[in-house]
Amino acid sequence: MTVTSAGSEEMKSGSLPLGPMGAGAAGVTLCIFGTGDLGRSLGQRLLQSGYRVVYGSRRPDSCGPIPQGAQVMSHAEAANAANLIFLCVHRDHYAFMLNMEPHLQGKVLVDISNNLKKNIYPESNAEYLQRLVPGAAVVKGLNTLSAWTLQNGPLQGKQTFICGDSAEAKQAVSEVCTRLGLWVVDRGSVGASRELEDFPLQLFPEWRLPLSIAAGLGAAFFIYLLIRDVVYSYVEDKKDISFKIMVALPNKVLPTVSLIMLSLCYLPGVIAAFIQIYRGTKYRRFPNWLDRWMLCRKQIGVLALGCALMHVLYIFVLPIRYSARHRFITQVVNELKNNKTTPFYFDTRVAWAVDSLMGLGILGFFLFVLLGITSLPSVGASLSWREFNFIQSKLGYLTLFICTAHCYIYGWKKLLSRSTYKWYTPPGYMLCLITPSVVLVLKAILLLPCVNRTLTRIRQGWERAPPTGHLEKQKATNF
Amino acid sequence: MTVTSAGSEEMKSGSLPLGPMGAGAAGVTLCIFGTGDLGRSLGQRLLQSGYRVVYGSRRPDSCGPIPQGAQVMSHAEAANAANLIFLCVHRDHYAFMLNMEPHLQGKVLVDISNNLKKNIYPESNAEYLQRLVPGAAVVKGLNTLSAWTLQNGPLQGKQTFICGDSAEAKQAVSEVCTRLGLWVVDRGSVGASRELEDFPLQLFPEWRLPLSIAAGLGAAFFIYLLIRDVVYSYVEDKKDISFKIMVALPNKVLPTVSLIMLSLCYLPGVIAAFIQIYRGTKYRRFPNWLDRWMLCRKQIGVLALGCALMHVLYIFVLPIRYSARHRFITQVVNELKNNKTTPFYFDTRVAWAVDSLMGLGILGFFLFVLLGITSLPSVGASLSWREFNFIQSKLGYLTLFICTAHCYIYGWKKLLSRSTYKWYTPPGYMLCLITPSVVLVLKAILLLPCVNRTLTRIRQGWERAPPTGHLEKQKATNF
Amino acid sequence: MTVTSAGSEEMKSGSLPLGPMGAGAAGVTLCIFGTGDLGRSLGQRLLQSGYRVVYGSRRPDSCGPIPQGAQVMSHAEAANAANLIFLCVHRDHYAFMLNMEPHLQGKVLVDISNNLKKNIYPESNAEYLQRLVPGAAVVKGLNTLSAWTLQNGPLQGKQTFICGDSAEAKQAVSEVCTRLGLWVVDRGSVGASRELEDFPLQLFPEWRLPLSIAAGLGAAFFIYLLIRDVVYSYVEDKKDISFKIMVALPNKVLPTVSLIMLSLCYLPGVIAAFIQIYRGTKYRRFPNWLDRWMLCRKQIGVLALGCALMHVLYIFVLPIRYSARHRFITQVVNELKNNKTTPFYFDTRVAWAVDSLMGLGILGFFLFVLLGITSLPSVGASLSWREFNFIQSKLGYLTLFICTAHCYIYGWKKLLSRSTYKWYTPPGYMLCLITPSVVLVLKAILLLPCVNRTLTRIRQGWERAPPTGHLEKQKATNF
Repeated sequence: MTVTSAGSEEMKSGSLPLGPMGAGAAGVTLCIFGTGDLGRSLGQRLLQSGYRVVYGSRRPDSCGPIPQGAQVMSHAEAANAANLIFLCVHRDHYAFMLNMEPHLQGKVLVDISNNLKKNIYPESNAEYLQRLVPGAAVVKGLNTLSAWTLQNGPLQGKQTFICGDSAEAKQAVSEVCTRLGLWVVDRGSVGASRELEDFPLQLFPEWRLPLSIAAGLGAAFFIYLLIRDVVYSYVEDKKDISFKIMVALPNKVLPTVSLIMLSLCYLPGVIAAFIQIYRGTKYRRFPNWLDRWMLCRKQIGVLALGCALMHVLYIFVLPIRYSARHRFITQVVNELKNNKTTPFYFDTRVAWAVDSLMGLGILGFFLFVLLGITSLPSVGASLSWREFNFIQSKLGYLTLFICTAHCYIYGWKKLLSRSTYKWYTPPGYMLCLITPSVVLVLKAILLLPCVNRTLTRIRQGWERAPPTGHLEKQKATNF
Repeated sequence: MTVTSAGSEEMKSGSLPLGPMGAGAAGVTLCIFGTGDLGRSLGQRLLQSGYRVVYGSRRPDSCGPIPQGAQVMSHAEAANAANLIFLCVHRDHYAFMLNMEPHLQGKVLVDISNNLKKNIYPESNAEYLQRLVPGAAVVKGLNTLSAWTLQNGPLQGKQTFICGDSAEAKQAVSEVCTRLGLWVVDRGSVGASRELEDFPLQLFPEWRLPLSIAAGLGAAFFIYLLIRDVVYSYVEDKKDISFKIMVALPNKVLPTVSLIMLSLCYLPGVIAAFIQIYRGTKYRRFPNWLDRWMLCRKQIGVLALGCALMHVLYIFVLPIRYSARHRFITQVVNELKNNKTTPFYFDTRVAWAVDSLMGLGILGFFLFVLLGITSLPSVGASLSWREFNFIQSKLGYLTLFICTAHCYIYGWKKLLSRSTYKWYTPPGYMLCLITPSVVLVLKAILLLPCVNRTLTRIRQGWERAPPTGHLEKQKATNF
Repeated sequence: MTVTSAGSEEMKSGSLPLGPMGAGAAGVTLCIFGTGDLGRSLGQRLLQSGYRVVYGSRRPDSCGPIPQGAQVMSHAEAANAANLIFLCVHRDHYAFMLNMEPHLQGKVLVDISNNLKKNIYPESNAEYLQRLVPGAAVVKGLNTLSAWTLQNGPLQGKQTFICGDSAEAKQAVSEVCTRLGLWVVDRGSVGASRELEDFPLQLFPEWRLPLSIAAGLGAAFFIYLLIRDVVYSYVEDKKDISFKIMVALPNKVLPTVSLIMLSLCYLPGVIAAFIQIYRGTKYRRFPNWLDRWMLCRKQIGVLALGCALMHVLYIFVLPIRYSARHRFITQVVNELKNNKTTPFYFDTRVAWAVDSLMGLGILGFFLFVLLGITSLPSVGASLSWREFNFIQSKLGYLTLFICTAHCYIYGWKKLLSRSTYKWYTPPGYMLCLITPSVVLVLKAILLLPCVNRTLTRIRQGWERAPPTGHLEKQKATNF
């Protein structure tokens, strides 16, 4: 077996006759500029994947330890030895690349750099690099991998983004990444590099919108209920029940927010179905707001589950609260003093209502937890598409239905009490029943045989009007 | 062996001198028939993994967008350019393959197709294809991957099945799959293709049996307890306690089912051990029913955990039930009216019993949750075999023991009450103690030093009778 | 590029003209000595990854079934066909390697063997093998993979350790492992082989220290509280409250241990920060005890969460305990008999305190669960470093703060009761407040602008004293 890769022959002279083994699965030489933490960690990984690695360094003789099996040379020599060069150098030191220009003609330059903050430079690092070395094909990428990640644990299945103007250069980088076990997503031209450089600086970008919704709903309902309960009681009855802020009020706000968020999880799907029926085709993009909404359904659902969990914890803690015990004792003592017989009459209807409330609540929470568990990356990955769909859709709607019923029963029970319409405002649970009810009614309409049949056909590719501009439409397929 | 890939040379002319990089880690050309969603997604992945991709299309000039780096040709040209052809076409359009016969001689044809329903065609798609093109080697496979999966997220570690009559063809497909990061399982000859085509249509196949057992046990105990509690009360005492259907009854059924399911998790292992001791060898297959049972132990355990979780939720909700509070108030009032002193006498034995009941219940549930967490794919994967075994076996038996003790203490407490043997039937918790007790006794026997020593030796490969037909036995090793 | 691999030509004669496909992604021949379970499973995997596999066997004609596509030969022939040989043979049979010496010159020998117990041989298997065949390069590795693992499920991302004296041999083995999807960690020279051989025999090595700490703390507090509560009550009041051992006592011990463990999670980070500020550099190793402590923070945290979960379960079960109900009834009856009015006076301050206690407890537990979920391997892997850091650090300190506040409020409430200083000993919750308070105060100091600025600069690489021995320091970087 004859492998001719210029710089690599000398490395294995005088050693074990590893023959085909030493040539490795790739036998390709890659170059890394920079021998810092990141450069060393990346080189180690590339060596493990069977590549040959040469380092380019300002001081090849005193650059510190490099991974075993790699070589250190001057920048120019290293650049000549490989066609693909990883740049593990801070942007501030890019200037030296200007002198390197002749050695970089036609090479692929991978810019892995990150900045400490957003928007501190007028152009992105990759664009700056491309401007410095116009003869090379700059690819931005791998910048979401830290030195720590490269040193510890597997890369298999990790996502990395690349962008660049040369499709061939991107293809070459993509192959190296795939070999490292990474899952590469191409984000287009080098213009996307600013976006890529901002990725590692972002904190839960996909959670921002759902968290804002949850926080907004939570704050609104908290203030609303604070006024209805605590302020009302203070103004009308001169009673200080401000202690309710700690347990009673959150325990009203949380289930309200949870149910609304759960219904917001399923509302976009229903809207999308109606849009598809109205348009008579699935081959047209949804409006942007709907796309964005659908992409954060998982996060909305997880937040709804978090609220539901808190609600459950608050419920369980109720009987050991001082105020609950005090009310209970007062109740017993009053009954005995007044010798009323009402409480001793066992109202089966109330027993049914309370037990149904709790039974449905527990069942709903249990299904909710099930949905949450299947949202865990490793569990979700072990399901087939059909199974995942079954759980998130069928089981999801069942959960929504049961939780809505749970809330309706709670409302029914409360209708008996006098304190429902304080200051002519409806209680919180009435407001939170609106969206789930709407979603369930719309879903019921979609399940009508005639509507369902049309929708299924549309989703299998049927179109009401004959396709005129087929090519254009295909580009905009809603995956 | 000389590798020259004709059709690929032209693709990289006049571009960056990528040299060894452009040749890719593989440099092999693969062909895809069909440029639909699936074909495009698959091609994208193959390109990322370093393969060259040519598409075969009916209309090479108007087939819509294909992934960058791939080429579109007529079917015949594309087939000539590669030795391995992926068929991303609906079965209904297979007829065109008949005309392709001369170009497909000796090629590997990968059938990825799926059907919308089971059993709509007399033969499987792969067998049909093999009949159309007898000169090619048909391999069924990859059909569990949807276009969505291929576009989104990593394939690393995903399982895929292949089958086919040619071992070499399967080997070739297997290598491509492995390169994509997939974990390939060979299911044998092309006769298995119907089974493979049914996989994506199945919904939780491995959960069917455990779910049936759980549902059957649940229904049986629910009816049994409904008769013993609600109907009995109505018939004998003329009291309507039907509201118990919502909380009290499920709270009896669930722990019962949970404990039985948990013991069913460990029963097959104990039976297997006794069979091995009886046979004096581990080199003989277990009966099929036992094999099947052992394969769904994890699912049985997860269902048992689900029931236990529901039981815990029901328990915590008990004190805030209307009926519980009513009974409590009635009790207090009665005590005061009758001026009995019994309740004020603090029975330490009862306090011990109730607290032990709860302490053991909490401990058992905690261990159960621990078992559940280690059953999560990502957690289980991070354990060594020895650690996984320790948790699922040692900790599992401890959990079973504690939960059984929890149930015994509950029974002991109830023995004091009069209402235990209504209509001469034993209460539910007595019935559910049978299997766990049997499992624990059998396990205790297996732990006796003399029995344990024999079993350990058998499991290390020792056989009581000298091996006569060693070769045949090795084939049937119980892994 | 011309690939010729001698021994592989004959294998594929007279079959499908697979051409470039059959040559596989690697086309390299590997040898396996031993056709047992492990050898067969390993061979199957290597074949799937595109390698050619030849087996060396004592009886090539009667060695039982081997994976399709592999060949069986005598040991000598097989050794000649490959440069890399996997030894899937028990150490007891290594003697035959002596006769093989001439065929093994310059080959790479991978020792995969394990022993049943630690320290049963004077030297490790790999060292013994190297002594037997000094002309070969022995690499220890892959011994953490069982035959079961190789047969079932993906290897992608699994960690494996290798060690050996030849860097080139290790590189060759590392490439094969990487191709199998494994994540290779080099542990140095062959001297580390004993350590590697002990890995599969270890049971949760990284959990040993945290579990010892938890068990020690738990036992100490249990005995302390047993004496303070149960023994004190028996000696001073002649009351038998031994039933408290089951619920009440664990419910005091568990939160105590949980809070201390949580603070122990964050203490080493704070200490490390102060060491860095004192030294004025991040380029010096921490003392060993601190390194070790920091490496088991995750385990300490998980144990703390376990204790917190148990505490929550105990709390929820409180109201249905016999003793709680008895005390409650007694309280009501006494109130009525003595006609005292105290309980009927609603103390808003107590209501605030109790509700705050519970509200903070629930919030703290919720955040704790969130921390636990992000510790799951699959969830943690989906977070960027910045996100993981945010959750484990910011959210972690918030959790510690809330849980500490929860405990302070509990203490404040109890200060009102008389029974606080029995036998002049402080109650458990006072003792458990020490470490969290210290951690929070130290952290607050670190957050002071002047201190924080210095620390940030140090962590970005700044050093107070000019670097004199820069190279030596770089070697000891604290990653």
